[in-house]
Amino acid sequence: MNIRVRPLQPSDKADWQRLYDGYHRFYDRPDLPQDFFDGCFDRLMAGDARDFHALVAEGDDGLLGLTHYLFHPHMWFPEGACYLQDLFTSDQARGRGVGRALIECVYAAADAAGVPRVYWLTQETNYAGRMLYDRVGTRSPFIRYNRPT
Amino acid sequence: MNIRVRPLQPSDKADWQRLYDGYHRFYDRPDLPQDFFDGCFDRLMAGDARDFHALVAEGDDGLLGLTHYLFHPHMWFPEGACYLQDLFTSDQARGRGVGRALIECVYAAADAAGVPRVYWLTQETNYAGRMLYDRVGTRSPFIRYNRPT
Amino acid sequence: MNIRVRPLQPSDKADWQRLYDGYHRFYDRPDLPQDFFDGCFDRLMAGDARDFHALVAEGDDGLLGLTHYLFHPHMWFPEGACYLQDLFTSDQARGRGVGRALIECVYAAADAAGVPRVYWLTQETNYAGRMLYDRVGTRSPFIRYNRPT
Amino acid sequence: MNIRVRPLQPSDKADWQRLYDGYHRFYDRPDLPQDFFDGCFDRLMAGDARDFHALVAEGDDGLLGLTHYLFHPHMWFPEGACYLQDLFTSDQARGRGVGRALIECVYAAADAAGVPRVYWLTQETNYAGRMLYDRVGTRSPFIRYNRPT
Repeated sequence: MNIRVRPLQPSDKADWQRLYDGYHRFYDRPDLPQDFFDGCFDRLMAGDARDFHALVAEGDDGLLGLTHYLFHPHMWFPEGACYLQDLFTSDQARGRGVGRALIECVYAAADAAGVPRVYWLTQETNYAGRMLYDRVGTRSPFIRYNRPT
Repeated sequence: MNIRVRPLQPSDKADWQRLYDGYHRFYDRPDLPQDFFDGCFDRLMAGDARDFHALVAEGDDGLLGLTHYLFHPHMWFPEGACYLQDLFTSDQARGRGVGRALIECVYAAADAAGVPRVYWLTQETNYAGRMLYDRVGTRSPFIRYNRPT
Repeated sequence: MNIRVRPLQPSDKADWQRLYDGYHRFYDRPDLPQDFFDGCFDRLMAGDARDFHALVAEGDDGLLGLTHYLFHPHMWFPEGACYLQDLFTSDQARGRGVGRALIECVYAAADAAGVPRVYWLTQETNYAGRMLYDRVGTRSPFIRYNRPT
Repeated sequence: MNIRVRPLQPSDKADWQRLYDGYHRFYDRPDLPQDFFDGCFDRLMAGDARDFHALVAEGDDGLLGLTHYLFHPHMWFPEGACYLQDLFTSDQARGRGVGRALIECVYAAADAAGVPRVYWLTQETNYAGRMLYDRVGTRSPFIRYNRPT
């Protein structure tokens, strides 16, 4: 089966929203309002180099996955860093290499931007995700602390 | 003893560099070139709202600590997030509340910017740091993966 | 499909050894000598209440999995604790509920012995195992330290 | 200052109980009944080779710390393993090397018993303990799961 990874485009909106909604449901954020998705999609389409970029994986049967990544300044490295924030594959497409293809295309985009350092955060118990991440990435000893809400 | 937290200013350069060098030594990055420190200090003084900001803690005996933080876009939250990247207290100032004062001033700066979400990453084995972080923050279940180098 | 969990018996030796060898290969201990398996099997058959006990899961097509558990004294609880040390399911039997059935039968054996506390250790990266363990057990905050070898 | 590590003896009961109570308070188990301490002390004094053994650290000002350890069978290693379950140093004795002295004497006792493998479990957030454990031991990737209560 063919998987093509390409930038998100305006005609993808409905498919993209279905995937991004699935992603938020994974993180226990169901029923987000349409305004949320409209705002996100507009940002991704606006082409602001300092905001998020989106790639989607497309198969013969439509969109299979998405990723959103951001280049941001970093104190240690003048070229900055690339933060891969969102990654999602539809349930039907699991096990077909979609996640890996998306991550590798973010790596390529980061190289093209001269920002080779790419990182992401994941829950320690995201076992299915980590089976992939251990193959395409390296677990660091860093953990995240949040300001209390 | 009094601790005042205030923005970094041009006359702080030598003291700031001494602290920031100590921070990098903690992370096994000794002997960084002067160019590195010059570049960082220039960025912090440039006042770019989309680059890092610096606060320093000052006691009667000079600078005791520093923090560098960044506001960056976030897909989930339109107002973005505040990433507290660097935090350091000089050896002599440990146990005097410098780290806590710096973090709390970042919280206040984030509130003032309308970006209440603040987070940071730390090594799982940074025990001394985590004794503080567990009091002023909340450990999340998120861990960091890096692109292999 | 039927799965029956029952105590290990002398006629199981060849099948048991095949499974226990698979378990050690999972932990990067291939090619253990026959003496090792002979010694283990003899202990399991000896019926010493203070040594390990073995249960096996049997399907229509032979043995599918095994577990070895031990009752040992505990300072906090006079009745002691039950340590489930080894658990293994053959590759062909994955996803058929063998691991869960074995753990639940250890729970029942522990109850029958008046030692309700059961625990086990697993590698943080044993994702497939933890998918099961999170359903039948509770992750504790305890981690293991070893004397350096 | 001198620290002597020696086996627990009958005349230590009151001092031992004060320390062991402090240990349980650390783990949020205050106000244990006298029966609990009586039962534990009797077991430690009974000399059963298959139950727990106790060592205490003594300074010029009395008992400073304790440890309880157990030899138990292990499927992988015919000689068994040594489980260091309880370790505690009084608040006043922190930083004087008491914990390290106790652990090293357990290592020596394990060697004398022909059971060189020693391990212990600790909470991931026991930062003060782990500062010591990282120096005298090796963190393994194993985490503990419990049967739900």
